Amino acid sequence: MRRQKKFYAWGYADEDLSADEIVPWEAEIAQRYGLDGFDVTPPPRPEEITLRAPRVAPPPALQPIVRTDHLTRLEHSYGKAGFDTTRMFMRSVPNPPDAVAFPDNEQDVVRVLDWCDSIGATAIPYGGGSSVVKGIEAPAAADKVVTISTRHMDKVLEVDPVSHAARIQGGIYGPAIEDQLRDSPFTMRHYMQAYRCSTLGGWIATRSGGHYATLYTHIDDFVESTRVVTPAGTLETRRLPGSGAGPSPDRLFIGSEGILGIITEAWVRLRKKPTFRASASVRFKDFFAGADAVRDITQANLYPANCRLLEAREALPGIPWSSEEAVLVLAFESADHPLDAWMKRALEICADHGGVADAGADDENAHRSGAAGAWRNRFIRAPHYGEHAVARGILSSTFETSMTWDRVRDFHQKITAITRDTIRRVTGRDGTVTCRFTHVYPDGPCLYFTFSGILDKRRQLEQLMEVLSTCTAATVEHGGTTTHHHAVGRFHRPFYDKQRPELFARALRGAKRELDPKGMMNPGVLIDP
Amino acid sequence: MRRQKKFYAWGYADEDLSADEIVPWEAEIAQRYGLDGFDVTPPPRPEEITLRAPRVAPPPALQPIVRTDHLTRLEHSYGKAGFDTTRMFMRSVPNPPDAVAFPDNEQDVVRVLDWCDSIGATAIPYGGGSSVVKGIEAPAAADKVVTISTRHMDKVLEVDPVSHAARIQGGIYGPAIEDQLRDSPFTMRHYMQAYRCSTLGGWIATRSGGHYATLYTHIDDFVESTRVVTPAGTLETRRLPGSGAGPSPDRLFIGSEGILGIITEAWVRLRKKPTFRASASVRFKDFFAGADAVRDITQANLYPANCRLLEAREALPGIPWSSEEAVLVLAFESADHPLDAWMKRALEICADHGGVADAGADDENAHRSGAAGAWRNRFIRAPHYGEHAVARGILSSTFETSMTWDRVRDFHQKITAITRDTIRRVTGRDGTVTCRFTHVYPDGPCLYFTFSGILDKRRQLEQLMEVLSTCTAATVEHGGTTTHHHAVGRFHRPFYDKQRPELFARALRGAKRELDPKGMMNPGVLIDP
Repeated sequence: MRRQKKFYAWGYADEDLSADEIVPWEAEIAQRYGLDGFDVTPPPRPEEITLRAPRVAPPPALQPIVRTDHLTRLEHSYGKAGFDTTRMFMRSVPNPPDAVAFPDNEQDVVRVLDWCDSIGATAIPYGGGSSVVKGIEAPAAADKVVTISTRHMDKVLEVDPVSHAARIQGGIYGPAIEDQLRDSPFTMRHYMQAYRCSTLGGWIATRSGGHYATLYTHIDDFVESTRVVTPAGTLETRRLPGSGAGPSPDRLFIGSEGILGIITEAWVRLRKKPTFRASASVRFKDFFAGADAVRDITQANLYPANCRLLEAREALPGIPWSSEEAVLVLAFESADHPLDAWMKRALEICADHGGVADAGADDENAHRSGAAGAWRNRFIRAPHYGEHAVARGILSSTFETSMTWDRVRDFHQKITAITRDTIRRVTGRDGTVTCRFTHVYPDGPCLYFTFSGILDKRRQLEQLMEVLSTCTAATVEHGGTTTHHHAVGRFHRPFYDKQRPELFARALRGAKRELDPKGMMNPGVLIDP
Repeated sequence: MRRQKKFYAWGYADEDLSADEIVPWEAEIAQRYGLDGFDVTPPPRPEEITLRAPRVAPPPALQPIVRTDHLTRLEHSYGKAGFDTTRMFMRSVPNPPDAVAFPDNEQDVVRVLDWCDSIGATAIPYGGGSSVVKGIEAPAAADKVVTISTRHMDKVLEVDPVSHAARIQGGIYGPAIEDQLRDSPFTMRHYMQAYRCSTLGGWIATRSGGHYATLYTHIDDFVESTRVVTPAGTLETRRLPGSGAGPSPDRLFIGSEGILGIITEAWVRLRKKPTFRASASVRFKDFFAGADAVRDITQANLYPANCRLLEAREALPGIPWSSEEAVLVLAFESADHPLDAWMKRALEICADHGGVADAGADDENAHRSGAAGAWRNRFIRAPHYGEHAVARGILSSTFETSMTWDRVRDFHQKITAITRDTIRRVTGRDGTVTCRFTHVYPDGPCLYFTFSGILDKRRQLEQLMEVLSTCTAATVEHGGTTTHHHAVGRFHRPFYDKQRPELFARALRGAKRELDPKGMMNPGVLIDP
């Protein structure tokens, strides 16, 4: 029996935060903003939301795998961003998909695309539906929309224990990969916050960033080969450890966000389950003392698995909001060798920048205790707070970008100021802005901004969109990327258009015309037809 | 004063092997094949080769940067493969370029492409002209051909000492990069055999593989952003340490082999010059004992800078041809920390597979002495032997591919047998075949095959092409790549066509039509118009 996901928010219907989690969280926010309490909108029930009647009817042969019932369409209408949950709480779903297809295999995918083609429907690859960028949302202008969920294509098909790789179906969720690898010595170890409800095909289509903070972060580096069903046919790239034969075909599909086809399978690189660990939390007097240490660690090619720099007030309990302190969550792991030399050198670098390691550093369970443990719990539980914030009109959102080290300090300052000013301008009162580095490279970090404030519940969606759009636009305007690991979708599209060279958009359009001549695949994402 | 390159072979006109190098080499080969000696064809002089009259005349405004003289056209007619030198020794150049342009800056590149467009000429980006795959050769069918050499665009324009990156012009040769970085603490450290006479733009266009044997091997990973002049206009990608915004624009141009435009600039990642080194040579009883060790080292994520597995009889002096012994050249380097822990663990892994480290292992100068030093000298000097082999009708060539570890042993056996059989069939006598791993990844190695034999000088080119084509075809037929780091060009085209998905070729053609609507850029390479 498949667990039912919440149609209106993150997670499964049978799980929620406990009162022990919600009450202090709510009290802390109320206190921060000097409020007595919140007007709490109850979550929507499916019958409270009216959907337009389906504009398509699946032919008999497809009826076993295509659904048009209310709840299925509702579940597949939005992703899992704050603006998605907000619209659900507004009981507003003007553009649901007309049908949702659940192919059992690749041949089914072909049949569904053929059907879409024959009726002139737009096809939207759904992945796990965890998009936070309107990547899986039906475009308002489409006449007919069929969403395609590959969630039944959820098997690890083959493990190559010699090359450390596996052939895996595109519709598999993160945990199922690890479950099916349980009897092997391997792990894919590509975790992100959406891990539980996102798919391998979705990770590839959106260039997801995973658990590793350095080196093997982006899914791009995990992919050995791909298999893609396009409207023009099915293609499979050759499984190769390395090749110099022309532009990489995989790289055309990695990041293609469903506009070229549906990724049905991939060979991905695995690694042995780590048996050696070294973890530490290091405190710095401020964020940029920590940033200097992080830069030196990455430029020293030490490749920690985790190297997340956080503002202590955001990451740790009991830190006053006025504190400038930062904490670095640092971890090395290996299935091959003890990591003493690696950790020792990384901690020396931290010390050079005034970093003080918490007691328990170097303890191999440190990643589940202390600052690292607190960060880990918060990381896993964070998405569940979204619906409770929305229900209360609490602004609570994030955006992420990346920047080279030479400009990061100035960039950080500008974006922080713009975010702070925008919250004040839009909501009429001060909010909070914090930043972390979630992924770090020798030439720069991924900056992940978290902000909060209090919205006017009558204009909740409008205010949220204005803050988020203004801040995201600023990242691009000041030289960053519109997204480091959350994809472009429909939300980032105007900012992406400024970021990428126009000639590249033309080239991509030319490629799309060959693979999707009628422009039926996820139109409006990345490029216009 | 620029040094004159040899028009007919590798290297500069003012350098050659010494008699001390040639005499024992020639004697060894004569002895191996039971020959008394060789009929030595003298190298061609320019005036011995007749070229078709130029079919274009540069307009006055371009005359300062466009040359149509005999020697310039001759120099730019062929790359540096054995079949190129052979054709030069045959005094056969039926399809020289009609003119060679030397733009001084990007605006000149635009002007030259505009001129090509206006006269209907094919434009061939030349890089350093070190292609060994007919990548820079004029297609016989073209009416007019203008070769474009960016060698005057040879500056490191900007160094970012914080992010460890530099903005560099596309026409720069390898040594000039390091020269211009001399006063900085940085190095690009992307060396390959063609390093001295190949360009950054060429490396990017051909997805070159460099000095590093693991991790940072392909130029792909060095590129932070690119600037490209296409017939449709100039584009520049944004400089970012990481991005998830759509398919990577850089990756479309990395490996594009001049069919989309000319790479005029790139930001590339640098690293600090290494100050710590640990090197060793390790002997194994046979190649696959060494291969198992190499696989374990890469899968342990130790990331040695050098990890080349060689057959001892090929790499070292005084090893009998019957020996099965293999030698691993292993090196770690860092600008940050001592490498004892890394080398210790790698040598433990080697010992687990029966590997015995040479005396002097762990000595930081070991890379210039012993087996490693012998390998290093041979690596640098090898290309110079090409013309002397050609002059004598000695078959001496290489091809390279890659394969996942699970199939590498069987693949190695098949390709070795096919190469051996093909030499015997084509030349009527036995030759030699050896293999090395030049680059290694956690999921598989790059196999680099070297073969030799004795050709019939009357059918020298035909026999060479037949051996090389048969072996390269076999790599693709048995699941490998047609090239791991030497590009596709015109030579690999039929094998590449079998390797890459046809739908990818169509997508690439769609992209090309947008950037190069008239199909003037290097036609026939990678795809047909």
